[in-house]
This record gives sequence, structure tokens and C-alpha cells, in this order.
Amino acid sequence: MEQIPKTQETGQAVRMLIRAGRHTGPTAGRAPGYVQANLVVLPRDWAFDFLRFCQQNPKPCPLLAVSEPGEPHVPSLGEDLDIRTDLPRYRIWRDGELIAEPADILGHWRGDLVAFLLGCSFSFEEALIADGIRLRHIEQGRNVPMYRTNIPTQPAGPFHGPMVVSMRPLRPAEAIRATLITGRFPTVHGAPVHIGLPEQIGIADLTRPDYGDPVDIHPDELPVFWACGVTPQAVVAASAVPFCITHAPGHMLVTDLRNSQLAIS
Amino acid sequence: MEQIPKTQETGQAVRMLIRAGRHTGPTAGRAPGYVQANLVVLPRDWAFDFLRFCQQNPKPCPLLAVSEPGEPHVPSLGEDLDIRTDLPRYRIWRDGELIAEPADILGHWRGDLVAFLLGCSFSFEEALIADGIRLRHIEQGRNVPMYRTNIPTQPAGPFHGPMVVSMRPLRPAEAIRATLITGRFPTVHGAPVHIGLPEQIGIADLTRPDYGDPVDIHPDELPVFWACGVTPQAVVAASAVPFCITHAPGHMLVTDLRNSQLAIS
Repeated sequence: MEQIPKTQETGQAVRMLIRAGRHTGPTAGRAPGYVQANLVVLPRDWAFDFLRFCQQNPKPCPLLAVSEPGEPHVPSLGEDLDIRTDLPRYRIWRDGELIAEPADILGHWRGDLVAFLLGCSFSFEEALIADGIRLRHIEQGRNVPMYRTNIPTQPAGPFHGPMVVSMRPLRPAEAIRATLITGRFPTVHGAPVHIGLPEQIGIADLTRPDYGDPVDIHPDELPVFWACGVTPQAVVAASAVPFCITHAPGHMLVTDLRNSQLAIS
Repeated sequence: MEQIPKTQETGQAVRMLIRAGRHTGPTAGRAPGYVQANLVVLPRDWAFDFLRFCQQNPKPCPLLAVSEPGEPHVPSLGEDLDIRTDLPRYRIWRDGELIAEPADILGHWRGDLVAFLLGCSFSFEEALIADGIRLRHIEQGRNVPMYRTNIPTQPAGPFHGPMVVSMRPLRPAEAIRATLITGRFPTVHGAPVHIGLPEQIGIADLTRPDYGDPVDIHPDELPVFWACGVTPQAVVAASAVPFCITHAPGHMLVTDLRNSQLAIS
């Protein structure tokens, strides 16, 4: 870990630390104010259908950038940014099976690969915290609870499957403010997709999330559900893509964009 | 009633009909797209405290305009608009008691009176309907149900009292869209103040509203609560103001402003 105060840390500084092997863990809390992104890398043959899938499902799959085929740099997200080295940990998938979790993908990169960068809830959680809204999973030191729903995504080619949602318990007035705040951030999942009646979207038991950890829900709170960035990974895994690379959970790409730049105005 | 198709009717045309005594009923549905306003008229001695009250309580008391003392015209809301003749029905209050419901206030106007024009939920209901959201009280041909809450207003001088809210039952995904849509209209009550847990805001029985009519709530719906324009009238009635004029319920001022002009951008 570096000694630079994190509040002054830039996205580029974090990427340089990661590239040099000096930051190897999750990226939560690093470079406050800077946008972090989910990574999905696919061969060009599969890229058109996945791009259509994202275009049709903007709430779970909000696109921040798509690379040129074979091009590991994405200048719109950061100077000198290199997809192959600038995330702390990756996952390599073959035929839907996880086969490796390397710290870089220099040895896996190919001239036909396309990188998709998707928005991440870290951006909107920062906006909620800045508004004084307390997030239970952060206070309890847990991963946010996530659930498979009965809300279908719009399929594109081989990509299909149910939407995955994350859940944050909030008091009603907070839920309204959180809806307004996250509605201003359509490229990081936007406003919630559901509130209050989980059985309506196929969630039978909030204490048993499909991903992440359960959190306490108080009697004066409603469960509020946002479309989740796990959706595209679940969809890619279910599609039997022969080859795919993603980030490892929580080990995101830190960009040069500011969260505030994502707000619609 | 006139034969002009209502969808082409302007706010000014409706005011001319009312002034000529050719429209005497409620204004709901007239001049679609034009802003309608609540009216509160107070003597100048009470006007400063009421203006402070509105400034401190913008959700129930969203100010569209305040007249000069003694001036019955409000040019910012309409050419030739005359507060004394352009509403179909008024209420005259003395010491908190309703004493008359005249069709004009020419005989009651005084040189020390100040007119307050406050936003009305008709504007945001039009935006919800335009989005395809169905409103139960309209479908059931009833007045919207309204409830006194335990949410205090911020007092100013003699003006104080609990917030009154209106309630519309919506399915969760509609409630989220309605929150985003009405949040763009801060001058007509803005986003909801509560959702889903009425007992938290002091409402014991949704089937017994304090004003308006009860409406059906289906099992797949949540009650959604907005700050209500009845609040300032209830506050004025409770303040023992010696003299006050308001519109009669549903008999609003139709202005030259367009609802779409009220949206923040």
C-alpha cells in the first residue's frame, strides 16, 4: 500500500501502482471520486452480439467504452490505460469454466479480442454516501447482497438470461432520494428497478442472496433493488462462449473519469 | 361549456370563459398542458410570515408567483390575468371560518391584499399519464385521497401544522418512474415524500382519508405519498388569520405557463 492520502489519489496513480504490482487487492475505496469499471473481454466473433445485448439491456449492462479489436488501450477512459495490466486481478474463462485468476493478461491477449467496460455501482454508492445515506452492507463490512430475478433480459444472439439485482435496505424517504440520485447516473445502472415487494420479481427469501452476503433489514426499511453488473458475467457464463476474460470480483478498472461527470444534467 | 376542442384550448381562453361566467365548474381537464395554480390571498400584515412559511416548506407550498400588495394582476402567470375574476369559485374565510363561496371576489378585494399562487398536482399528474402511468383516483372518478401526517412543517410566525399528503397506489416499477418524473417538477410538489409504510408517517387507515375519497389499492401496489397543496389551506385555517381568500377545491387558476416549462433541465 502507498502512503499517499487516498482522497488525493488519482485514477491514473492507482493504475500505475497496480501495473507495478504494488496494489494487488480489491479497488473499493481507492481514488475516491474516480469511476471504476467492470471488464468483459470477448473474441471479435462474439463481440457484435454482446454489444447488441448491452445496447438492449442498458440498466444491467451500462456501457462506458468498447475497445477497437486487438487494441488494449482505451484512451476515452484514461491516458496510457492498458487493459492487460491495469486491473489487480482477472478471471480467464473457457467454455464457461473459470480456468485461471492471473494478475495480468499479457500472455492471454490476442489480436481479435474486444474489451467492454461497464459501469459499476461504486459510482452511485459514492453519490448516495455523499448525500448522507448510510449503506448497510458497507456498515456491516459485507459484499452487497445480489439476487437472480424473474425479470428477463432482452436476448441477443447467444446472450440471454435473467437480470441480477443488488439490494440495499433504506427507509422510505431515503429510498425516494436514492431513486432521484441514482436516476441521474444512467451509465452506472441508474434508478432502481424494484422496491418493496421482492416476491414480485421472483425473490423468495432476502436472507439467502444468490451472490454476495445477506444484510440486516430493519422494520422501518424497504428493500430497494438496482440492476447489477453481475448480470453480464452471468449471461456470458451461460452462453458457452469458448473464451472470455473478466475482472475478478471487486478488482475493477480505475479510470480517469470522475463520477460527477456521469451525472446527466 | 364551449365547443372548442379542449386539446387546443389555451389557459387564456379558459380564463376568458370563466371571467364571462361561461365556465363555472372545476377546472380539471381544461386547457391540457397549461399550469393550474392554488390561490391563497392574505392581508399584507400576514403576507411576510406566509411567504417565509412557503420558502421553508417548498414541497407542500411550491410558490409559482406572489403579487404586489393590492395588485390583482400577475403578469408572470398570464396576460391580462385578474385574480378577482378568473377563477370559477372562491372561498372567503374570516377568523378561520368559511363564510362565503362567491364566483368572483371583486367586492372583497382590498388595497392591502397579497395573492400567492402555488403549484398543483394536476401538472405532475399530466406528466405521469403522458408516461403511461394510470392513476386510480382518475380511473375511479374520485378525488385523490389526502391524509394529515405526523410530518411537521417548519413554522413561520403564526403559520404551523402537519403536512398533508396525497396518495396514489402504484406498482413498484411505476413508483420508481413516478419518483423520477415528479422529481423533475419541484414547483408542483416534486418527488414523493413517502412510500410503502404509511404508519411511519402517522396514517393509521388508508381507507379513511382526511380529505378526498378512498381508492382501491391492489396487492401488487405500494401507496406512494406526495406533499399536498391542501397543506397551506389547512395551515391558514389553523392560524386564526382574520381574513383570507382561497380558491374553492378543484376550481383553480389556469395560467399561461406550460407544464413542460416547470421541468428542471
